Amino acid sequence: MSLRIIATGGTFDKFYDLQSGQLLFRDSVLPAAIARARFAEPPVFEPLMAIDSLDMQDHHRQQILQACERSAERHIVIVHGTDTMRETAEVLGHAALPKTIVLTGAMLPYRVDDSDALFNLGFACAAAQLGGDGVTIAMNGQLFPWHAVRKNRSAGRFERND
Amino acid sequence: MSLRIIATGGTFDKFYDLQSGQLLFRDSVLPAAIARARFAEPPVFEPLMAIDSLDMQDHHRQQILQACERSAERHIVIVHGTDTMRETAEVLGHAALPKTIVLTGAMLPYRVDDSDALFNLGFACAAAQLGGDGVTIAMNGQLFPWHAVRKNRSAGRFERND
Amino acid sequence: MSLRIIATGGTFDKFYDLQSGQLLFRDSVLPAAIARARFAEPPVFEPLMAIDSLDMQDHHRQQILQACERSAERHIVIVHGTDTMRETAEVLGHAALPKTIVLTGAMLPYRVDDSDALFNLGFACAAAQLGGDGVTIAMNGQLFPWHAVRKNRSAGRFERND
Amino acid sequence: MSLRIIATGGTFDKFYDLQSGQLLFRDSVLPAAIARARFAEPPVFEPLMAIDSLDMQDHHRQQILQACERSAERHIVIVHGTDTMRETAEVLGHAALPKTIVLTGAMLPYRVDDSDALFNLGFACAAAQLGGDGVTIAMNGQLFPWHAVRKNRSAGRFERND
Repeated sequence: MSLRIIATGGTFDKFYDLQSGQLLFRDSVLPAAIARARFAEPPVFEPLMAIDSLDMQDHHRQQILQACERSAERHIVIVHGTDTMRETAEVLGHAALPKTIVLTGAMLPYRVDDSDALFNLGFACAAAQLGGDGVTIAMNGQLFPWHAVRKNRSAGRFERND
Repeated sequence: MSLRIIATGGTFDKFYDLQSGQLLFRDSVLPAAIARARFAEPPVFEPLMAIDSLDMQDHHRQQILQACERSAERHIVIVHGTDTMRETAEVLGHAALPKTIVLTGAMLPYRVDDSDALFNLGFACAAAQLGGDGVTIAMNGQLFPWHAVRKNRSAGRFERND
Repeated sequence: MSLRIIATGGTFDKFYDLQSGQLLFRDSVLPAAIARARFAEPPVFEPLMAIDSLDMQDHHRQQILQACERSAERHIVIVHGTDTMRETAEVLGHAALPKTIVLTGAMLPYRVDDSDALFNLGFACAAAQLGGDGVTIAMNGQLFPWHAVRKNRSAGRFERND
Repeated sequence: MSLRIIATGGTFDKFYDLQSGQLLFRDSVLPAAIARARFAEPPVFEPLMAIDSLDMQDHHRQQILQACERSAERHIVIVHGTDTMRETAEVLGHAALPKTIVLTGAMLPYRVDDSDALFNLGFACAAAQLGGDGVTIAMNGQLFPWHAVRKNRSAGRFERND
């Protein structure tokens, strides 16, 4: 069962830039994370963009939608910033593609001690392979439907929002 | 949806003992791994045993089966050594409990750089929540039915064995 | 030979705050780093302040100087931000205390993959035990006298400045 | 001040072999550790051998001595297994070369969580640059003369042995 993993940036992929002391983007960590997972059947990796999800505009979301549309793989994981993950999920959800699309991300960057990134990637990869057609968010060890989820910023986690 | 995670030992949980220079068991890493995953609804953790799966005997497998039988949670992840994971899966598979049981483990210990353990745990936790009743092995980014899987030791990965 | 390690903050000690997405200070990592070093004779640890060295004012530097003056240990390591490490070293250097004072820090936070922090701490602890009275900066695998060093920000390292 | 780092194997450099489940040697981690330290003046790295120090014979120690003799650098760090570090230090100590030779190693492999390896490397690199001619062991945040040190195996640390 073939799987596509699309990187869009977000906390998952941030690295510490020692010149500026800021968290920025450089090459995605996903190729390393995918190698580490030791897939029997390696997924296709597509580095689509590398931005903070707070900077994501409508045209970015259209780009993500188009990447899902043209994906030869029916099962898709999108690595995305958490702050507007729900907004992107809505755009994808309304499109109602005949594909299993799972958005995930991380509360702590992959490269930082004690990060949730690798767990979330594993969780999302299983959800994308086992779930039915539709769009879900995989965060905090749980699958949320795209239309009933919100990020609780003060608690630092996602929750149902029915 | 409640989830139980049962530790039985295996490579996932090995640590480096500096007195002996050997890889041994001590306290399980799973409470730390579970905390790191930042579950919205934390799973129940049951440290059942801590042994190398090459040392696992029939009575150990019966203990694991009994733990699954008495589990109040319908969704169960078992962290297990890879060498005889298939044998334990068979015992559980033949019992045909009305529960979703997913076995996972790691090729590299959780505490070692570049370990697949956290990815596998995430993958298994999603599979246990989304799968139907039955017993599967979640390794190498794939779900294998208990009766059609083997560990390819020279390649260091699991594969279908139909 | 007794040693005192004084924390003042800086990149070494920054952690990723998941509510704000910023790098902030919380409890110092130094107790963990010191435990990890497995000292035969554990140093005294003094968490003096926790600030970015760009925010360090004269009165902070006076506090650091006073901490050195009152230190019962003759050998002192100060963990400090890199941006104004030289300025603090100058204040301490002019005071000419009869003590061996070594400032160190990190280009990447201790908690981030591939950080230089633990190497620098080891380097500084040896330098503080072996060096003579005076003030030096231990960074980039080298010891620099306080009056002849600068941070080359674009290169991201310290260099002689005679 | 130029520095040579010689790898001989030992716990510092062990990696987990997933085929056998054993700790073995492969490529040394030292090039990665040296890069991470961000040296202003990078040391010369010499991978001389890769063995467990319990397997070290007289002829291995002669090889190490010869490597020190022919070193163009006066300051030398030798990364060595802890179990017979003292024996090698004695061979080097009796040779009384006009060089500063510091042996170090690790109680936990570099690639394992919470390893002391990087701290020890930093400590040894400073000791090799600052110390006088002679042979010392740098472990547990302390410098021990070659003729007055032993490994306390049950405690898992080095101590004076006068």
